[in-house]
Amino acid sequence: MSVRITVWNEFRHEQKNPKVSTLYPNGIHEAIASPLREKGYDVKTATLDQPMHGLNDKVLDETDVLIWWGHIAHQEVSDEIVEKVVQRVWKGMGLIVLHSAHFSKVFKRLMGTSCDLKWREANDKERLWVVQPNHPIVQGINEFIELPQEEMYGEYFDIPQPEELIFLSWFSGGEVFRSGCTYHRGLGKIFYFRPGHETFPTYHHPEIQRVLANAVEWAAPHEIKQPICGKVQALETLPSLQS
Amino acid sequence: MSVRITVWNEFRHEQKNPKVSTLYPNGIHEAIASPLREKGYDVKTATLDQPMHGLNDKVLDETDVLIWWGHIAHQEVSDEIVEKVVQRVWKGMGLIVLHSAHFSKVFKRLMGTSCDLKWREANDKERLWVVQPNHPIVQGINEFIELPQEEMYGEYFDIPQPEELIFLSWFSGGEVFRSGCTYHRGLGKIFYFRPGHETFPTYHHPEIQRVLANAVEWAAPHEIKQPICGKVQALETLPSLQS
Amino acid sequence: MSVRITVWNEFRHEQKNPKVSTLYPNGIHEAIASPLREKGYDVKTATLDQPMHGLNDKVLDETDVLIWWGHIAHQEVSDEIVEKVVQRVWKGMGLIVLHSAHFSKVFKRLMGTSCDLKWREANDKERLWVVQPNHPIVQGINEFIELPQEEMYGEYFDIPQPEELIFLSWFSGGEVFRSGCTYHRGLGKIFYFRPGHETFPTYHHPEIQRVLANAVEWAAPHEIKQPICGKVQALETLPSLQS
Amino acid sequence: MSVRITVWNEFRHEQKNPKVSTLYPNGIHEAIASPLREKGYDVKTATLDQPMHGLNDKVLDETDVLIWWGHIAHQEVSDEIVEKVVQRVWKGMGLIVLHSAHFSKVFKRLMGTSCDLKWREANDKERLWVVQPNHPIVQGINEFIELPQEEMYGEYFDIPQPEELIFLSWFSGGEVFRSGCTYHRGLGKIFYFRPGHETFPTYHHPEIQRVLANAVEWAAPHEIKQPICGKVQALETLPSLQS
Repeated sequence: MSVRITVWNEFRHEQKNPKVSTLYPNGIHEAIASPLREKGYDVKTATLDQPMHGLNDKVLDETDVLIWWGHIAHQEVSDEIVEKVVQRVWKGMGLIVLHSAHFSKVFKRLMGTSCDLKWREANDKERLWVVQPNHPIVQGINEFIELPQEEMYGEYFDIPQPEELIFLSWFSGGEVFRSGCTYHRGLGKIFYFRPGHETFPTYHHPEIQRVLANAVEWAAPHEIKQPICGKVQALETLPSLQS
Repeated sequence: MSVRITVWNEFRHEQKNPKVSTLYPNGIHEAIASPLREKGYDVKTATLDQPMHGLNDKVLDETDVLIWWGHIAHQEVSDEIVEKVVQRVWKGMGLIVLHSAHFSKVFKRLMGTSCDLKWREANDKERLWVVQPNHPIVQGINEFIELPQEEMYGEYFDIPQPEELIFLSWFSGGEVFRSGCTYHRGLGKIFYFRPGHETFPTYHHPEIQRVLANAVEWAAPHEIKQPICGKVQALETLPSLQS
Repeated sequence: MSVRITVWNEFRHEQKNPKVSTLYPNGIHEAIASPLREKGYDVKTATLDQPMHGLNDKVLDETDVLIWWGHIAHQEVSDEIVEKVVQRVWKGMGLIVLHSAHFSKVFKRLMGTSCDLKWREANDKERLWVVQPNHPIVQGINEFIELPQEEMYGEYFDIPQPEELIFLSWFSGGEVFRSGCTYHRGLGKIFYFRPGHETFPTYHHPEIQRVLANAVEWAAPHEIKQPICGKVQALETLPSLQS
Repeated sequence: MSVRITVWNEFRHEQKNPKVSTLYPNGIHEAIASPLREKGYDVKTATLDQPMHGLNDKVLDETDVLIWWGHIAHQEVSDEIVEKVVQRVWKGMGLIVLHSAHFSKVFKRLMGTSCDLKWREANDKERLWVVQPNHPIVQGINEFIELPQEEMYGEYFDIPQPEELIFLSWFSGGEVFRSGCTYHRGLGKIFYFRPGHETFPTYHHPEIQRVLANAVEWAAPHEIKQPICGKVQALETLPSLQS
């Protein structure tokens, strides 16, 4: 059965900044969704200003992998929706966190750290080096992806040590960054992927699109036995309790 | 300079259950604090029912390592204090989380998972096997610690994969548990240590006391350069931006 | 395309010990190969006493995943073949290391440790607890697998810290063991799986067979770009060297 | 008691290349040893062309931490000495592997991978960014160390995933590198530290010297209980075996 994807986007820059709307006339969410649809996935989109941010229970029930892009309105995302998303991740929904969503409530809640970093909007070139070449997320990707212009994110990036480090970024201004990081939280798999500033055509780049499709495959839940928690009887005979 | 420790205890069982107050007449916090004091540490205690749960800014400012025991009143810990503790951990304060504090707000907040598990109050024997014998936390500890009676905690334990796994528990009822786990969050080091049910004399056990003292040494912050985050200038000359 | 598997077996116990040949009349290799064949995999077998231990270049060239069982004759495996197997793993061949093959030359060479452990042939029950329930290797597996009789392996197990810990074993004699461990070496994925003593019907157990099939899927190489190493030119303009 | 250090150096470049002997008139080993001696450590040196490469049993018995620099003569190191060093690491001796010693027999043996990488002798600037700022190895170190000229090492670096990643290098030619990596093998701690090409004054840099002193403290063995392996009796009563 096809993986069911929901692409969530803040969708604010596109309505205010002509540079962004020129690059992404249907929104960043559609630029991400469209190549995934072409690959045969079942893709929905949802945005901040929809009722319940477009993430009601039915939508979440029908989502195997959630992709999240946000930047200037993280605080407008309701805590109730954040908690629902977190609970779904714990039950097995995959989560792909893009670029400035490092500061989203959802990501910070799942990481348990501040997720702070260095940044600069300038004229940096970014080169994303693959450091785990046999990982499914980089299937078909060359030894690096070069982006002629991107916003810079630099270390120290305040995240828990990644379980797997997939990409390391080099920036022409002199910084490095852990740009592709995987985590598990509960039964859910999480992939943080750095590039994707709204004023650059990053999501039109075919290798970025390939990474996102690979990440969807990697993060999608398979058949999982939900673990049993709570009070249990002993499996072996125990001596009787004396009070 | 001596490590400054604060032992935080819920301190409720001791006031209600004679079995507990017989084992820990001055409270679990004093049973933990006393052998640390004898080793020369500067040890304070704090309890739930004190103003601000005994954790005002001055106390936290003077704490290098916080030890946390809680069980039936996690919900009574104020979110404001939880947030302060989390922020201190991010700035470098060590945190040692004991037994049923797996479900404390502080630990769940820092882990980003449910921290759920299996449990049973019966007549289990516990044997904690050392699986990283050169870790500072098990310095001087034999290949296992045996506790003749303890509450059982069993897998699946819903935590992020530990950065280091120090102890694995065997229970006579048939379960296993990841009993000693380390994490970093921000600049702070965290050690979760399983044993310590209130109705058993676990904190009077000399090897348990040794582990706690070792963990304090391991978790104590040393001289740390606080990382620089936020907007930064390029370190290398960049081509000028064209708008 | 179907994953191509080679099951390598020492195949000595079966020829000497009637208890083993009764349990595994066609050898442990056939007991492992047969259920994989039924699932549609392309499965070959190879044994120690064949020319080149059955692992000539053609066989290795046509192997995506190698499964390895050995016990009493590790020293008879030629260093040349060991080196070839190691090189194939580095280029992407999956490797599944079973039970007493913890002491095989191939595994020790890839781990860089002694791989020593505790053991006992007695009357132990083993219960393998799943501690990463969303891992592909435990797809379809319940919260534990119970083996009524197995050889005991106990900690301390001298391996590098596993990248992922999938199973923890409980033994009725009082020990625990890290029973399912994953590693990467070069482009190859490695899974160590503890159970499988020759005098017990472990490889006839359907859940053990399911784990092996899952592990084959997990370890099989996909399309990988071989990394570029060695001397390279700069990607950016460097100032000229002054001697 | 003071940590006992042995600095091992190939000591060939210094005798052939006037550029190297000008920078390191007493050899790279003395340049490394001297600031450690000033800090109060008990430091010996050993070189390739001494009998047994200067590493007889007595020297190894009296070494808590071994520092290793090699480049053009890895193949001349005898396999017997390599095996002795490896065994000592397994028993708890710390090992600090410098720069081109990524290709030393000792390091490759302990890693189980090819340890290959990209390289270039040109006019690169290196900036080593700290990515785990609370690690003891970077105590007192600023957010990066800048080396105006160094040999470039670039990804893909074929090592097992580091247990802890301490430094990431940025190179002006466009590459990145995992420059400070920790591992455990047996009871020994290992730190790989990238910089230190023989034609540059890297070991005279005060922050590089500080990292080496910190790494010695981190890698030095403390009181360790040697694990018990081999055949053992059950700790619990087992049902009797039926044959």
